[in-house]
Amino acid sequence: MSSSERRIEFWYEFASTYSYPAAMRVETLAAEVGVTVQWYPFLLGPIFAELGWSTSPFNLQPAKGAYMWHDLARSCRRLGFPFQRPEPFPQNGLLAARVATALPDDGTRARFSRAVYRAEFAEGQQIAEPAVVAALLADAGLEAEALLRQAAEPAIKEALREQTAEARRHGLFGAPSWRSADGELFWGNDRLEEALEWAQSL
Amino acid sequence: MSSSERRIEFWYEFASTYSYPAAMRVETLAAEVGVTVQWYPFLLGPIFAELGWSTSPFNLQPAKGAYMWHDLARSCRRLGFPFQRPEPFPQNGLLAARVATALPDDGTRARFSRAVYRAEFAEGQQIAEPAVVAALLADAGLEAEALLRQAAEPAIKEALREQTAEARRHGLFGAPSWRSADGELFWGNDRLEEALEWAQSL
Repeated sequence: MSSSERRIEFWYEFASTYSYPAAMRVETLAAEVGVTVQWYPFLLGPIFAELGWSTSPFNLQPAKGAYMWHDLARSCRRLGFPFQRPEPFPQNGLLAARVATALPDDGTRARFSRAVYRAEFAEGQQIAEPAVVAALLADAGLEAEALLRQAAEPAIKEALREQTAEARRHGLFGAPSWRSADGELFWGNDRLEEALEWAQSL
Repeated sequence: MSSSERRIEFWYEFASTYSYPAAMRVETLAAEVGVTVQWYPFLLGPIFAELGWSTSPFNLQPAKGAYMWHDLARSCRRLGFPFQRPEPFPQNGLLAARVATALPDDGTRARFSRAVYRAEFAEGQQIAEPAVVAALLADAGLEAEALLRQAAEPAIKEALREQTAEARRHGLFGAPSWRSADGELFWGNDRLEEALEWAQSL
């Protein structure tokens, strides 16, 4: 296949815990093997709601949740990423997802998204707060005020809804998820290496 | 710590899909790094029932289930294990778990357990059937009739119930799970290498 197939779709949700290490490492690993990353923010809330869940499964299943926090902290230590458990959990990532949708996927969306994950999972910031999102945008040298305004426009809201519908059509049920150019699906931070191997082989 | 700490507990349930590749590869990988494996069969049914689930979460969440079957087949191909999707799923692993509990953990339990997983996930056999379990025991050179009788005794039933209660006390919520001598918990076939690294470091 052509080299345009050597790309991977990174589907992420800002409240998703394992999306944090995934977001922090995907570009480095992908660059090493010559694979391009496409950043696809989406919402898990509507997908969970269809299963009758009103919150994260990690809250609904206490034993699994307790393990997840322990494993996530351990994984971040192994990978060298600072970690702090966000309170409350899950954080509402709707505003951040709309802003990410409004940003071009030319490195800008990735840079903002990593900043959001860092604020949420390394610094204990409240990413649902417009002031926090505005500060992250400003820190990234972006037009905070204009972008927050744009994020509230119907076109962006609709684009994110459509992205979430697309995720559902692709069979996504969690984040992070990876999708190759030929539609092969991989779920979880643990599957990043395997997804990149697949993308490389196309 | 002493070399007696260089062991890993392998907690498995016969209906569990990813316990199949886990069971097939744990002894080889553990031997390579000088770690001893202890085989702990338990039941996920009672743990799932506490969450209000009447069957496997892979049946209750169709998108996750569809992905799991695809990923499991892909993982088995990568690892070189034959794979066939069991029908029905989940298989009732109660009898096999009782027999495994009755067997000594000196290699015999491991050998029988691998045979059950192979029958279930590679050969499409019905592991709930006493005749199937009897044939697996006979193939392994074990006293099938005596062991099936022993598996029906109150002491074995109670030992398996106690093992499941112990799993719950350890915070287990799925299988395969790995537990080190110092109580560190790892979940999933994907965490086997990390669990062995941990055990090795003790």
